[in-house]
Amino acid sequence: MNTKKEVLSTIFSRKSVRNFTDKKVSKEDLELLLKAGMAAPSGKDRRPWDFFVISNKEILDKMAEELPFAKMLKNVNHAIIVCGDSDKSDYWFLDCSAATQNILLAAEAMGLGSTWTAAYPYRERIEVIKKNIEIQKNITPLNIIPIGYPKGIEERKDKWDPSRVHWVE
Amino acid sequence: MNTKKEVLSTIFSRKSVRNFTDKKVSKEDLELLLKAGMAAPSGKDRRPWDFFVISNKEILDKMAEELPFAKMLKNVNHAIIVCGDSDKSDYWFLDCSAATQNILLAAEAMGLGSTWTAAYPYRERIEVIKKNIEIQKNITPLNIIPIGYPKGIEERKDKWDPSRVHWVE
Repeated sequence: MNTKKEVLSTIFSRKSVRNFTDKKVSKEDLELLLKAGMAAPSGKDRRPWDFFVISNKEILDKMAEELPFAKMLKNVNHAIIVCGDSDKSDYWFLDCSAATQNILLAAEAMGLGSTWTAAYPYRERIEVIKKNIEIQKNITPLNIIPIGYPKGIEERKDKWDPSRVHWVE
Repeated sequence: MNTKKEVLSTIFSRKSVRNFTDKKVSKEDLELLLKAGMAAPSGKDRRPWDFFVISNKEILDKMAEELPFAKMLKNVNHAIIVCGDSDKSDYWFLDCSAATQNILLAAEAMGLGSTWTAAYPYRERIEVIKKNIEIQKNITPLNIIPIGYPKGIEERKDKWDPSRVHWVE
């Protein structure tokens, strides 16, 4: 019963965090987020993912400048870029979305803040990321997830809308 | 600390369940799964999702027959079909994948079994689903998730692969 309560409360309390303290996240905790990501299901169990963990402030600042949608990278010490491998699956973006959600929930449960900042399918965003970090040609960034300790000003949204449910009994 | 432990352990222990007991799932619990689904993030907060909950055994049996990939629907009392609304977002399948992962994790935490059974992007699977339940033209099924009490024979996989992580420090 405890598991149910803790997991549902994390799912419901997860929110997009874009404001972070200066405190760095340990490599152990960053790795735990990636372990959570790789525990996601994937079509035909192909696991078509790659994860870049950027803890280089210069690169984060540069991407914050060049990506108007990702300005918050200026105020964070780490970011995970979830990427998909189109050589492994044509539908990598579905599997990588599930992996991303695992990372966001793990972060929330660990007291970390994060937010899904879309790269794919926007060509110009993908190009900026590929200019700033070395990524193979067959690998496409799905998103950038800033990771840090939240300043604690964002609130969860209640998005429950029963009209979106259709009961077929 | 409890939250971290419970959530990570659920993320790591979630597995695809395709064998179910006869026991029905309460409407309250099914609704809780949908609440978890709708707590997912979505691009521009558009929430481009619709959920069909099928508890009609005749329809489930028919889809099990017509969808070779979804034979397990014969052995389950409920299924959630996660759908996306292309009028609300061109990239509904990313948001709906995050919503699906929330549902799978909530199910695991609640002692329920489930598995992501792909519909999109396979045209013939989408057509069979649309033949069996009434779905508007702009709505596309992403997957079918059977929901039931597991018979307890599936085991989790350890998918951690450090070679998929690239540290940029």
